[in-house]
Amino acid sequence: MKQGFAEFFGTFWLVLGGCGSAVLAAAFPDVGIGLLGVSFAFGLTVLTMAFAIGHISGCHLNPAVSIGLWMAGRFPASKLLPYIAAQILGGIAGAGVLYLIASGKADFSLANGFASNGYGAHSPGGYSMFSALITEVVMTMMFLLIILGSTDSRAPQGLAPIAIGLGLTLIHLISIPVTNTSVNPARSLGVAVYVGDWAMAQVWLFCVAPILGAMLGAVVYKFIGSPEE
Amino acid sequence: MKQGFAEFFGTFWLVLGGCGSAVLAAAFPDVGIGLLGVSFAFGLTVLTMAFAIGHISGCHLNPAVSIGLWMAGRFPASKLLPYIAAQILGGIAGAGVLYLIASGKADFSLANGFASNGYGAHSPGGYSMFSALITEVVMTMMFLLIILGSTDSRAPQGLAPIAIGLGLTLIHLISIPVTNTSVNPARSLGVAVYVGDWAMAQVWLFCVAPILGAMLGAVVYKFIGSPEE
Amino acid sequence: MKQGFAEFFGTFWLVLGGCGSAVLAAAFPDVGIGLLGVSFAFGLTVLTMAFAIGHISGCHLNPAVSIGLWMAGRFPASKLLPYIAAQILGGIAGAGVLYLIASGKADFSLANGFASNGYGAHSPGGYSMFSALITEVVMTMMFLLIILGSTDSRAPQGLAPIAIGLGLTLIHLISIPVTNTSVNPARSLGVAVYVGDWAMAQVWLFCVAPILGAMLGAVVYKFIGSPEE
Amino acid sequence: MKQGFAEFFGTFWLVLGGCGSAVLAAAFPDVGIGLLGVSFAFGLTVLTMAFAIGHISGCHLNPAVSIGLWMAGRFPASKLLPYIAAQILGGIAGAGVLYLIASGKADFSLANGFASNGYGAHSPGGYSMFSALITEVVMTMMFLLIILGSTDSRAPQGLAPIAIGLGLTLIHLISIPVTNTSVNPARSLGVAVYVGDWAMAQVWLFCVAPILGAMLGAVVYKFIGSPEE
Repeated sequence: MKQGFAEFFGTFWLVLGGCGSAVLAAAFPDVGIGLLGVSFAFGLTVLTMAFAIGHISGCHLNPAVSIGLWMAGRFPASKLLPYIAAQILGGIAGAGVLYLIASGKADFSLANGFASNGYGAHSPGGYSMFSALITEVVMTMMFLLIILGSTDSRAPQGLAPIAIGLGLTLIHLISIPVTNTSVNPARSLGVAVYVGDWAMAQVWLFCVAPILGAMLGAVVYKFIGSPEE
Repeated sequence: MKQGFAEFFGTFWLVLGGCGSAVLAAAFPDVGIGLLGVSFAFGLTVLTMAFAIGHISGCHLNPAVSIGLWMAGRFPASKLLPYIAAQILGGIAGAGVLYLIASGKADFSLANGFASNGYGAHSPGGYSMFSALITEVVMTMMFLLIILGSTDSRAPQGLAPIAIGLGLTLIHLISIPVTNTSVNPARSLGVAVYVGDWAMAQVWLFCVAPILGAMLGAVVYKFIGSPEE
Repeated sequence: MKQGFAEFFGTFWLVLGGCGSAVLAAAFPDVGIGLLGVSFAFGLTVLTMAFAIGHISGCHLNPAVSIGLWMAGRFPASKLLPYIAAQILGGIAGAGVLYLIASGKADFSLANGFASNGYGAHSPGGYSMFSALITEVVMTMMFLLIILGSTDSRAPQGLAPIAIGLGLTLIHLISIPVTNTSVNPARSLGVAVYVGDWAMAQVWLFCVAPILGAMLGAVVYKFIGSPEE
Repeated sequence: MKQGFAEFFGTFWLVLGGCGSAVLAAAFPDVGIGLLGVSFAFGLTVLTMAFAIGHISGCHLNPAVSIGLWMAGRFPASKLLPYIAAQILGGIAGAGVLYLIASGKADFSLANGFASNGYGAHSPGGYSMFSALITEVVMTMMFLLIILGSTDSRAPQGLAPIAIGLGLTLIHLISIPVTNTSVNPARSLGVAVYVGDWAMAQVWLFCVAPILGAMLGAVVYKFIGSPEE
């Protein structure tokens, strides 16, 4: 129960902070934070929450992560649904608060995308659906590798929040131009439900590909991370 | 007594460093640090001071934080007033030294805002008072969640300065365009007393909203952070 | 065997992430991440992998590093060849996935360099071969000093991934304009095999200089790092 | 003896890395790292070296720091001269290698300043000598507070390199426009000896003010950092 609330607030923060920095600050005239600032913002939502609620819920904030951890034998199946529900609701709530804030400016419009993920005509850099698919699968696979490796009992203890948070920053540094970067169905759904239209029509890819990638990451780490016989 | 001096120097550093980077370096021609640099500067004032004086005073540097910690049962009421006084004086002193430095340039003028917080016509991006209010309440609420969570005895020990400092960086990455980011009455008062005029007229919001947000954060963490029965 | 796979995935990530950020996001219109973002991306590939696979393979991801560690007496000669093979294959695989993603955009062309390293006419800033040589030797020497020092048993334990990762960020902040920064033959070969032509013709320098620099670094640290008699 | 070599290489790295990023990469067309990148570069030279050689020499890399530590009772007077000599020589050597690299580009000229520190007509932003003086004194005072506090036995152990390195980043984020940021006589002398002329004529301020600031910092921390009676 309290774990669900923790996941709710954590994913609320991920969407409000990550998408918020993109909507409010990325293209601010002359001194905007750009894609570099947005990348840091997404990563720091996870870094801060992992220190703040890691000891409560494990701080997944992401259905793909919960599924990957379950596949790797680190998370019980019984908790999958409540975690995923809390994450999706948290993402929608975070985007809701962002909408309240952003719409307090005269020229705000959801038609600018509201930081939704997309491919083809809706990819920030005009990348194909195929590029988007590979990107989201590979990025989430590597994200799980980082998560599973840095929380391994043989890794330095207590520092996984830094590795995982800055890992998400890195993933954004690479892939915002391709898909606006998801690797997280709750983040994609959170904003897409407000935009509707193309954002909802394309959101399937940002549910399927991250989950597929997370499963691959779990398989890879189970192999390379298990003790040498 | 020494705790008061520590809070004084810490808040001095927060205002001199955070507002200083904004006034002196943000819009430097061609190579300016932008809002991204200012966000890092604010966060790093807290990160560095939390390592430097955390063991002396706890390094609050912020009346809203002191009040939130008191509400969460982590700080005695008897110390609230001396801490808040030291923070406000430190903020005013930090802004004073910044004034001495900045006014050593020919075209300096307080009329450019001196990094004051504002809403409506004085919001950097032209956001309404309602947007400013939500922003400051929610950002400070999440700041307290990060502070209370990362200093929980179950969280990794010794790393809270990183979580809290980079948490403040994140908050600035999101919200500078809305209010110039306060989440801290001492920071807002520190510069507003020099600017006077609209900055003093609007400073109430940056006292009320952060304190309200901090109280909310304390309530939320008391719920999700208490051990599951 | 599993160490080889770990080095493969790690170097895959270094090239996909580092060169990927350069190819996909550095010059994105208006909000591109620039050389600063690319520098963070390269560094964060190493920081994240050092936390994720450091306990498996040591996370070298770089033939020059493996050779330097061997010279410093920290790595057995018998593992040099399999490690270097895994690193080179990983680099080529990472660049391959980057090619698949990047070519999903209409105007992509390998003729833009694909983040290859170069000197003279192919130096980003037009620096001479002599400048390139000094740069790569000295940067790799200092990289090894950082690696050997931060993993010394007398240094703070568990934090070497931060020192080494951000050390690679620093090296890129200095030297991208000179050579596009290699300090790593596997990174240089990974992209050069796709570009061929001048990139392959100049790749010798980015094999020779980093290895020479790594050897120098090992010698220097063996001297300054050994206990005072 | 080995401590001297460690200080030599460390200060070599500080000047080559910090000033190198400024000379080579700050104003690179379109994708330059700007003052934000230079700030990170300076800070990361100290962060990386503090992890790499902190256990050898303490990693001062700065005559003002050595003097401040001595005033605070943390460093023996007998080592002051050899440390300062090693630091100044390391700074000159670092600037020498930078000169070799930078002069490999057709349009290089020392007349562009070679990252020297200056005030008045030679302040990057045109700030007065008085502004420069206050800036260097206060920044070095706060730098010493960070150093003395984060290495206090009551502070989290092993993390001082992060606090001190990012503290130097912060100092640069604030003050590059005023003086190009020194807080370190060895860094100022290192480049000034190549530029001569106005750089040597103004270098006195960047020797006097940092040392004065460091002494003040030592006094302040001795007061606030000593246990409450």
